[in-house]
Amino acid sequence: MIRVGVLGATGYAGAELVRILLGHPDVKIAALTSRQYAGVSFSNIFPSMKGFADIDCEEYRAGSFTGRVDVAFTALPHKLPMAFVPGLLENGIKVIDLSADFRFRDVSVYEKFYQPHTSRKLSEEEAVYGLSEINFSKIRKARLIGNPGCYPTSLLLPLVPLIQNGFINTRSIIVDSKSGVSGAGRSLSLGTHFCEVNESFKAYKVSVHRHAPEMEEVLSEAAGAPVKITFVPHLVPMTRGMLTTAYADMSGKANEVELRECLDSFYRDHKFIRICPENTFPDVSNVRATNFCDIGVKADARNNRIILVSAIDNLVKGAAGQAVQNMNIMTGIEETAGLDNPPFPV
Amino acid sequence: MIRVGVLGATGYAGAELVRILLGHPDVKIAALTSRQYAGVSFSNIFPSMKGFADIDCEEYRAGSFTGRVDVAFTALPHKLPMAFVPGLLENGIKVIDLSADFRFRDVSVYEKFYQPHTSRKLSEEEAVYGLSEINFSKIRKARLIGNPGCYPTSLLLPLVPLIQNGFINTRSIIVDSKSGVSGAGRSLSLGTHFCEVNESFKAYKVSVHRHAPEMEEVLSEAAGAPVKITFVPHLVPMTRGMLTTAYADMSGKANEVELRECLDSFYRDHKFIRICPENTFPDVSNVRATNFCDIGVKADARNNRIILVSAIDNLVKGAAGQAVQNMNIMTGIEETAGLDNPPFPV
Amino acid sequence: MIRVGVLGATGYAGAELVRILLGHPDVKIAALTSRQYAGVSFSNIFPSMKGFADIDCEEYRAGSFTGRVDVAFTALPHKLPMAFVPGLLENGIKVIDLSADFRFRDVSVYEKFYQPHTSRKLSEEEAVYGLSEINFSKIRKARLIGNPGCYPTSLLLPLVPLIQNGFINTRSIIVDSKSGVSGAGRSLSLGTHFCEVNESFKAYKVSVHRHAPEMEEVLSEAAGAPVKITFVPHLVPMTRGMLTTAYADMSGKANEVELRECLDSFYRDHKFIRICPENTFPDVSNVRATNFCDIGVKADARNNRIILVSAIDNLVKGAAGQAVQNMNIMTGIEETAGLDNPPFPV
Amino acid sequence: MIRVGVLGATGYAGAELVRILLGHPDVKIAALTSRQYAGVSFSNIFPSMKGFADIDCEEYRAGSFTGRVDVAFTALPHKLPMAFVPGLLENGIKVIDLSADFRFRDVSVYEKFYQPHTSRKLSEEEAVYGLSEINFSKIRKARLIGNPGCYPTSLLLPLVPLIQNGFINTRSIIVDSKSGVSGAGRSLSLGTHFCEVNESFKAYKVSVHRHAPEMEEVLSEAAGAPVKITFVPHLVPMTRGMLTTAYADMSGKANEVELRECLDSFYRDHKFIRICPENTFPDVSNVRATNFCDIGVKADARNNRIILVSAIDNLVKGAAGQAVQNMNIMTGIEETAGLDNPPFPV
Repeated sequence: MIRVGVLGATGYAGAELVRILLGHPDVKIAALTSRQYAGVSFSNIFPSMKGFADIDCEEYRAGSFTGRVDVAFTALPHKLPMAFVPGLLENGIKVIDLSADFRFRDVSVYEKFYQPHTSRKLSEEEAVYGLSEINFSKIRKARLIGNPGCYPTSLLLPLVPLIQNGFINTRSIIVDSKSGVSGAGRSLSLGTHFCEVNESFKAYKVSVHRHAPEMEEVLSEAAGAPVKITFVPHLVPMTRGMLTTAYADMSGKANEVELRECLDSFYRDHKFIRICPENTFPDVSNVRATNFCDIGVKADARNNRIILVSAIDNLVKGAAGQAVQNMNIMTGIEETAGLDNPPFPV
Repeated sequence: MIRVGVLGATGYAGAELVRILLGHPDVKIAALTSRQYAGVSFSNIFPSMKGFADIDCEEYRAGSFTGRVDVAFTALPHKLPMAFVPGLLENGIKVIDLSADFRFRDVSVYEKFYQPHTSRKLSEEEAVYGLSEINFSKIRKARLIGNPGCYPTSLLLPLVPLIQNGFINTRSIIVDSKSGVSGAGRSLSLGTHFCEVNESFKAYKVSVHRHAPEMEEVLSEAAGAPVKITFVPHLVPMTRGMLTTAYADMSGKANEVELRECLDSFYRDHKFIRICPENTFPDVSNVRATNFCDIGVKADARNNRIILVSAIDNLVKGAAGQAVQNMNIMTGIEETAGLDNPPFPV
Repeated sequence: MIRVGVLGATGYAGAELVRILLGHPDVKIAALTSRQYAGVSFSNIFPSMKGFADIDCEEYRAGSFTGRVDVAFTALPHKLPMAFVPGLLENGIKVIDLSADFRFRDVSVYEKFYQPHTSRKLSEEEAVYGLSEINFSKIRKARLIGNPGCYPTSLLLPLVPLIQNGFINTRSIIVDSKSGVSGAGRSLSLGTHFCEVNESFKAYKVSVHRHAPEMEEVLSEAAGAPVKITFVPHLVPMTRGMLTTAYADMSGKANEVELRECLDSFYRDHKFIRICPENTFPDVSNVRATNFCDIGVKADARNNRIILVSAIDNLVKGAAGQAVQNMNIMTGIEETAGLDNPPFPV
Repeated sequence: MIRVGVLGATGYAGAELVRILLGHPDVKIAALTSRQYAGVSFSNIFPSMKGFADIDCEEYRAGSFTGRVDVAFTALPHKLPMAFVPGLLENGIKVIDLSADFRFRDVSVYEKFYQPHTSRKLSEEEAVYGLSEINFSKIRKARLIGNPGCYPTSLLLPLVPLIQNGFINTRSIIVDSKSGVSGAGRSLSLGTHFCEVNESFKAYKVSVHRHAPEMEEVLSEAAGAPVKITFVPHLVPMTRGMLTTAYADMSGKANEVELRECLDSFYRDHKFIRICPENTFPDVSNVRATNFCDIGVKADARNNRIILVSAIDNLVKGAAGQAVQNMNIMTGIEETAGLDNPPFPV
């Protein structure tokens, strides 16, 4: 059994990690940490979990995982993981960080959009960007994963294969994403008050969201040249789910069959990616509470443009699920372990 | 492996059965039937199921399950099961019927609220009312189950123990239930149109809903005397979930500790019933997509009244989940098999 | 023109007051106050109001309304109005208080459920409980209104006429209410976080909500003897709306026609009360954004019980709308002025 | 008083017309027609309207409006208006058609996306496209209006001024729209079943929606040259509201101040268009139940791209409200009459 610890277990991503790990056949939850709820049973904070996670939350202290945790998930606000991760690694604990702290190879970009980085070398030389299907072989050998953001996951999975295969004019990429509210976390804000979100729909952080540079770094690597995108996120009045509609000019002339063929072939051996058949497009309700990314593709021949639509559950493939998938890859167990529960019809 | 067939697999209860059965370690789905979608792959009707239930729906015909199905679930509109069940039983197939056709021992009550019964003897002498925790020992020996309605399940689980133990004045029972929309099924009606339900809340079939006589039959048996109730169902703008608030006068003087103690003790060995601690009450979100029934109890001492609040997922404990639980009991496997997935934090 | 001031204009009830007053033909908004947003334009806080309420919020100070406000609405947290109201009245300003501070004639009850009262005499001897249709003639002469709570309004309007006419056994009243989330106000709490409310349904403050004593005082007056009720509120995943289902034993033998006749006759001249025809029941969506209270009645003859169902918009008839109705009555203008906008079909 | 008739009053757009017309100071509703509900009171179909629209629906017959209706609104499925409109005009009745039948000057485009046109000359030579702010002077003189679709309204209002002023590279326009469910009408379909929409988000008719050619005709006219766009609509789990995010390359170098200045200046005298200040973007909740179109603009300087975000209520500015605005313009009364109710804070 893999002994895991979750730092920051009481946010939505952390709690979703707990849910998935509880159902994982090869895992034992060794520790859940929470500053706010130290000493309180996890199932008192999330009463749904009564009988499943009657585990007292503890406060994380340097060294407190040593000897009892094999893999640590850090589901903490940006900046905290930088402080904790070096110590964890030194004690032989593998780390999957769900914050942005270890997502960037070019740390100067991180510093521009977040804050000064205190663990630059780890980020630049050791951390692996945990986009499971794309970076599979690097993840296998990693001891530190920067787990991707939800928006980047939803864009990169459909786009990277088409870029690598030369279908995309990389100066023309426009990304219009729509997220459920759980992506904003469990902290209180007027923006997540029920009455302000319900029967509402809006764009936010228009072209200034800090997931854009994260996407650009990976796209640039795929393209072998710098890629800049326009990115506009929107908030949908639903709890879970993320849909991304991406637009790009075709680099040459391709038809939809070739585009779908490219995606089909790229993801042939990857169970969590499902390519939709012709004239069929993803719905977030089809991936709810699963680790799937459903992808639809359309060639807009009149405009020589490609339209990509992808759907994920922002808390699963966009956070906790992909983190567990990465743990599975890193520890050499079945990639789908703990993540293959049947989807919901409704 | 138990080979199961689902008749009427493409309604919400049927599809939820498919979801649960797909994750059941001891089950193989042998047949899914649908009149409307015969010949169509189940995963084309429910695209979430792609990769899980790529099974062609077939039309059910007399004898078509013989030799390949051990247990049949009939998730059909009332009246159809009466026609199919005798044949299934004759061919050695155990049946769990999710309609009302086999829920009544007093068939004249069924006939008053539904229609003439064409299989009276089976219903009166053989069928077992599948309220799993209450009728466990009868279910174990049954070959035909009348699976309870969602409203009755949500009321009977909290109420029966208190009635059996004499706490309740059975002439005073008032039941105020609130259901998510999936309880109305997948058929089209103005009443399930998004715009008519969203931001709406209403009572319906006020004191004339036909789940009332179903409840009264079981309550009367528990009380050893005829029980009549007032029952008002309401529609909540959410997909899944049912909350029932029941009110009754105390028969004598009891305090809340005794009431909770009664429930705790009654359900001590039943994993799917969770009694809430003092001053804590159920929320349907805590049981979403699970087979749990959470129960809260309050003594309203000023009025010498008992208040019971229970929450279930109407599609799981209120339909498909309890049906699978009954199959587990009937076939002698672990009662919780296929039903013990960890609950969702959100 | 009536010059009005709204204290606490930036909560939901206050903002709804602003909306209604902006459309009122006989009103001029003279002042909006907000501690939190003093100096900020109201339409910056509620961007929907741009072009309608481009009014800077001010901080309320003793005397700051004198000479420029005829009627003040206090939409403040309980306890603040007690401090401000005496000064307003002394300066000749009529006051409609939306908090609980002036709802009780028996101030000891207030003190038991809220806090010590600092303006006891005003509350006991002068304030009028602003249930518009019931206390019309007292309201006409009042200079201080304790505007009713939303739950009490939804219960008292259907129940008082039947009690006054002797139909109800007043020892048997059970009140099961369901409220939209805006009733909890605009303040932040985990209980109003979108992800915690959406797809959720629960009871709260089971039989300990402080609207119960408010109801009991009015019911006791109607009955001419002390009345105690059982009251359980629930939270519905919708923004606006409140449905109350009330149950009571009939005092004698009455049929539904007599009950409906009693209500029809009682409310004949009151435009905002609509009695539903036989076998028709209210839906909160029918009263959304209106000052209506729709009432349905059912005689449960089998149990000799009466079922009453009422629907209001908690922010309108349950708060701001009834407050404006009371202002209309107090100032002798048309009772429906500013409140007769056509309802929404959806 | 203008005597109006509404053909097809019981769909959502028709019923919203009724709501607006009931509150219009210069209008008398003379006739409501419905094939399905002929003989039934409108307020029985929409119980919210009890006391406001207790008008029996009638079946429309040729000539049945003559002498009692001045202006007819046709809120019927495409194809029916073509048959009725010529007769109405001949009888001196002005017509505002909410279907697509009279939106196209180039009828061959209509015929490609809808069906053969039986009233070609009227459409090509007489009908005016009722985009109120853009075609104000033509509308004033018209007797037949093709009222714009909701998607076109939401796109054209922000885009036309910038195109006319040369800011836009018209070969680069991408339109990503998101609509509430009422846009799909009141007819029953699995796609509007509550459980299929709730907690769902999807794209539909990806780049094949027939509102695209409607937009292209108007954009081409504004540009003075053919314009082709990429258009992807999405369905949002809410009842009312539409948000459109449009992307285009700048034709030259412009900064955001110039873009906002262009919009501000273009709409200076148009009360229903509100341009958002810098770094502020529309939310559909700010325009709910109003005739406003809120517009936000962002210059994405890094990519030399313009981002436009607009919000309307699809049933008001996107249908019934703009239709009434057009009636006001055609009849020479105040443009905002019946449409200036204060917006909702929540």
